Amino acid sequence: MDSEKTNSRRQFLAKGAAFTGLALPFGAAKAQFGAEMEGLHPRRYDVVNATDERGFSLAYGSRAKFETPQRIASTTANGAVLGAYTPLQDLDGIITPSSLHFIALHYADAPPIIDPREHRLLIHGLVDRPLEFTVDEVKKFPSVNRVHFLECAGNSAPLFHEDARTAQTIHGWTSCSMWSGVLLSTLLQQAGVQKKARWILAEGADGAKHTFSIPLEKAMDDCIVAYGQNGEAVRPEQGYPLRLIVPGFIGVANVKYLRRLKLVDEPHMTRWETTGYVTARPNLRGKALWFDHEWGPKSVITRPSGGQRLEAPGYHQITGLAWSGAGSVRRVEISTNGGRTWKDAEVEGPAYRKAHTRFRMDWRWKGGGAELQSRCTDDLGNVQPTQAELAQLIGAPGPEWFKKTGIIIHDNHIQPWRVDRDGTVHNALL
Amino acid sequence: MDSEKTNSRRQFLAKGAAFTGLALPFGAAKAQFGAEMEGLHPRRYDVVNATDERGFSLAYGSRAKFETPQRIASTTANGAVLGAYTPLQDLDGIITPSSLHFIALHYADAPPIIDPREHRLLIHGLVDRPLEFTVDEVKKFPSVNRVHFLECAGNSAPLFHEDARTAQTIHGWTSCSMWSGVLLSTLLQQAGVQKKARWILAEGADGAKHTFSIPLEKAMDDCIVAYGQNGEAVRPEQGYPLRLIVPGFIGVANVKYLRRLKLVDEPHMTRWETTGYVTARPNLRGKALWFDHEWGPKSVITRPSGGQRLEAPGYHQITGLAWSGAGSVRRVEISTNGGRTWKDAEVEGPAYRKAHTRFRMDWRWKGGGAELQSRCTDDLGNVQPTQAELAQLIGAPGPEWFKKTGIIIHDNHIQPWRVDRDGTVHNALL
Repeated sequence: MDSEKTNSRRQFLAKGAAFTGLALPFGAAKAQFGAEMEGLHPRRYDVVNATDERGFSLAYGSRAKFETPQRIASTTANGAVLGAYTPLQDLDGIITPSSLHFIALHYADAPPIIDPREHRLLIHGLVDRPLEFTVDEVKKFPSVNRVHFLECAGNSAPLFHEDARTAQTIHGWTSCSMWSGVLLSTLLQQAGVQKKARWILAEGADGAKHTFSIPLEKAMDDCIVAYGQNGEAVRPEQGYPLRLIVPGFIGVANVKYLRRLKLVDEPHMTRWETTGYVTARPNLRGKALWFDHEWGPKSVITRPSGGQRLEAPGYHQITGLAWSGAGSVRRVEISTNGGRTWKDAEVEGPAYRKAHTRFRMDWRWKGGGAELQSRCTDDLGNVQPTQAELAQLIGAPGPEWFKKTGIIIHDNHIQPWRVDRDGTVHNALL
Repeated sequence: MDSEKTNSRRQFLAKGAAFTGLALPFGAAKAQFGAEMEGLHPRRYDVVNATDERGFSLAYGSRAKFETPQRIASTTANGAVLGAYTPLQDLDGIITPSSLHFIALHYADAPPIIDPREHRLLIHGLVDRPLEFTVDEVKKFPSVNRVHFLECAGNSAPLFHEDARTAQTIHGWTSCSMWSGVLLSTLLQQAGVQKKARWILAEGADGAKHTFSIPLEKAMDDCIVAYGQNGEAVRPEQGYPLRLIVPGFIGVANVKYLRRLKLVDEPHMTRWETTGYVTARPNLRGKALWFDHEWGPKSVITRPSGGQRLEAPGYHQITGLAWSGAGSVRRVEISTNGGRTWKDAEVEGPAYRKAHTRFRMDWRWKGGGAELQSRCTDDLGNVQPTQAELAQLIGAPGPEWFKKTGIIIHDNHIQPWRVDRDGTVHNALL
């Protein structure tokens, strides 16, 4: 080691106003400092790919081995994996860890593996200049980073499934991420949208070529061609390398593995938008709504929630998530007596638009029975309905109607959790 | 399958105002819908722990195999691993993926493994009621979720290291997370802080019992006893199961594996606060400042940055991160001509207090030489200094002084990146 380098390392300085005005003689500090810090000064930069025998990786870390929150799979009658639910009751804050983001699988038991170097995004149809982009080319455009929830249209529908008793298995088909990418409007402006265009057909590169029609107005508003999720690349289950994010719309509209955007003059009437994801309403006298894709205001208390148990009377924090497909969360109210009286919860801001928003309220459980409900109001004034209010709104015969219903499309009614005297928490609608 | 269940599954309904008023006959929709959706209705909820042959895990996902951003280790003269740097230039948004959060290792080459069921947090000293908490007990208190950066005091000090040429190796000892936990003030109120108390000694459960003194005023302001990071548990490298978050203070004050908080009347004068992490200032005539731990306003352009290359003249987005230990980012300015003229960058809001904040600006590179700089102003009006301004501020002889300096404590001066005619980007201070 040459002595000049050694000396220069033992010199040091820094800046800024002192937090506390204590000072010690410089010489004394220098002597100690040199000895302590000499060992801390980096000499080399190394790529360390190894994982040690205890599972520690310097290059890319993993969670503690004691941690067990995980997605739970749902399977269909014929045994196919339909998707997996986020453990909402185990999470804090508003960002869903990417490893626990819910999954919906329409066509296969596992997501496709796509080499990003081979992937292309085509924009064509009613445009002045058809364009094809590599993923790297997409990344060169002006970028945005926005927090948005995704939610499968069928979320909360398992409300009456005999095995669905927790926040996860009833409501876990929603998650929230910071999405990074390019505004779809930016790419469309490059291509030059022709006057006749009214809709966009979005197509994925999965084996079945999933397709969905997006109104042009929505595409030009806030849709994102996303390559990033929570700081790093979009996860394979979420559409790697490119996913169309359609903020506030049901999950199926947020086309994964996005490879084609065709500008068209009318909706394409794809398989899913004409069948599974339509809105039937008794009060429409036998009609079903197409393209009714925006989520209403919604919330769910995640702690305490079904399957949990309050250990003892006394202080408990009630917390959960609220969101709206139309805007941001303005207010969340909580009732602890089955909806008779309501109190404002604290909404942890800033509340992002079309994003999960954390709420909480202090509660003193007296030890008797209780019923917890949360009610979301968004910044447009839309209020989350109770099941009875929703029944009335759509012209269903009454709340009992819901019990007969197998699948509900974008159900947003209030979830009541019943607390029994022994502290156990249950779905009060079962 | 009994027919009543089958029938009930084929009924469906939903709610809400239609986005588009199209409608189709209910009967037709129902027939199609039934056939399509029958297969999609969950029948079972399964815990699926297996990872398939392609690496896909339903329970807990991982990133695409094509993705390579990783932490880079720094090692000391004697070969010990000092820590690892976040690949800032590869990330989007403001949340650092937990797997890529920077690591500082003072005492061992790997973080300790702590069973959270065995872990305890003791609060004692000048309190009315000494208290000991399990991790589960800590989680029962009112919680907060806040986005804060962490930054090692030695970050940006490798500015003149011959191998440190990238945003990662120069500045990658800073990361940003949503931290979840209990305000330290909440726990202290439980214990009852006595009037004589002025400082808190925080101690970790790592092998060397890392200790650091925190002013009581700061502890009562915004410190968090965190159990959560980005939605799930704090990572082992970051202090699992409990970490003290001291927002805006240098990383070493944010004690990992937090096991003890002792209320005392004066700082404990621990090893690190009296030696390595003191601020020496030439203009103090041989004195060094103790407890000068708050970060000033700071920013770094992460794209384009050292080691990258602009492929061709034309449009490029300049983007990066800004933060301040004193508050939120109010303004970021960018210069493309070495600081002669400045333009306001777009600051992506909402800007959290004491958190990374994303900025960006459109730029048209003409193909000649250029020098990119960013300058942060926080909401208290503090402005990030150039190297020359910082030299003047601390009474150093001049900018060349920095070149002789081995270690700088909480250095926040402006990073200039030089763009050469061939598009390659370099640290302009080397």
